[in-house]
Amino acid sequence: MNFLEERIVRDGIVKPGNVLKVDSFLNHQMDIALMNEIGMEFHRRFAHKPITKVLTIEASGIAIGYAAANAFKVPLVFAKKSKSINIEGDMYVAEVESFTHKNRNQVIVSKKFLGPEDHLLIVDDFLANGCALQGLISISESAGATVEGLGIAIEKGFQIGGRVIRNLGYHLESLAIVDAMDAETGTITFRPQV
Amino acid sequence: MNFLEERIVRDGIVKPGNVLKVDSFLNHQMDIALMNEIGMEFHRRFAHKPITKVLTIEASGIAIGYAAANAFKVPLVFAKKSKSINIEGDMYVAEVESFTHKNRNQVIVSKKFLGPEDHLLIVDDFLANGCALQGLISISESAGATVEGLGIAIEKGFQIGGRVIRNLGYHLESLAIVDAMDAETGTITFRPQV
Repeated sequence: MNFLEERIVRDGIVKPGNVLKVDSFLNHQMDIALMNEIGMEFHRRFAHKPITKVLTIEASGIAIGYAAANAFKVPLVFAKKSKSINIEGDMYVAEVESFTHKNRNQVIVSKKFLGPEDHLLIVDDFLANGCALQGLISISESAGATVEGLGIAIEKGFQIGGRVIRNLGYHLESLAIVDAMDAETGTITFRPQV
Repeated sequence: MNFLEERIVRDGIVKPGNVLKVDSFLNHQMDIALMNEIGMEFHRRFAHKPITKVLTIEASGIAIGYAAANAFKVPLVFAKKSKSINIEGDMYVAEVESFTHKNRNQVIVSKKFLGPEDHLLIVDDFLANGCALQGLISISESAGATVEGLGIAIEKGFQIGGRVIRNLGYHLESLAIVDAMDAETGTITFRPQV
């Protein structure tokens, strides 16, 4: 097991309905040392790519995005989920459906911050059905930017998102892929990684 | 001028209605090196305080919070703005009114992550009327935690928030306090700092 899988086994909680709670270290309370390690691991896995910016989506994606952008020493751009009165002018917009909140959101990035010159690493904390990532890919393509890769902390391997993204030909790296969970025993089965 | 004031003068844009756009480096696209510097400056200003956790509010507060928590080497907790199905059990809740979005939100933190043993540094990117900070203070007091101080990147000194927080006796440090803005000339007047 790698460092993130070990932490998930130690502090993650499996709940009925295939819910994995990692809010004590990843997405409500955050262990910043762990976050820094995730950022460095993304850097290791995408070191050969000419990343110019990291792209993520609010809210908990911002911390993962910070860690990655800090490791690559490039700016972070985060997509917003609803139209803010402080955003104006031309914007890239994609429609995404949230798995967690069961609603639809517009994902928005100002056209000022993405363009054909950009080589993007797209990151997020969780990948389940992948609608958020699909929205970020859609926005990147609209901008004419190059999606060099996608980095995820925890992928739910039994949901469709990862397969869709890989089928589309994108380089997706998930640091921990959960293939099965058992709420009764608390057992978590990870997909073996090379 | 300090490093943040210099950056605001260089890349901030003053819009009619006392709007200061800093979305090219602080809250949509983020300059991570600048963020790290903000975190280190908070650490310098609150170095004598026994900070155990940094508390902020989603979304753009998470990046400032990351920077501060990274400098203090403590966990980051961020408050959520609406009830998520992934949050369960006992929660601290405060009502806040957003200046930017002109609506009311519940600010929520799980009781697991704040308690009487905590000495908190509360941080956010902007302080205007201060409702978000008041919500975070309310939650901290509900938890029995000690609010050791509050760190803000940009305070709008012509709005009420900063005065309220200081009147309440809290130690508030804003790295840049904008006392006046002129959209026609683009002029920004900062409050002198010692």
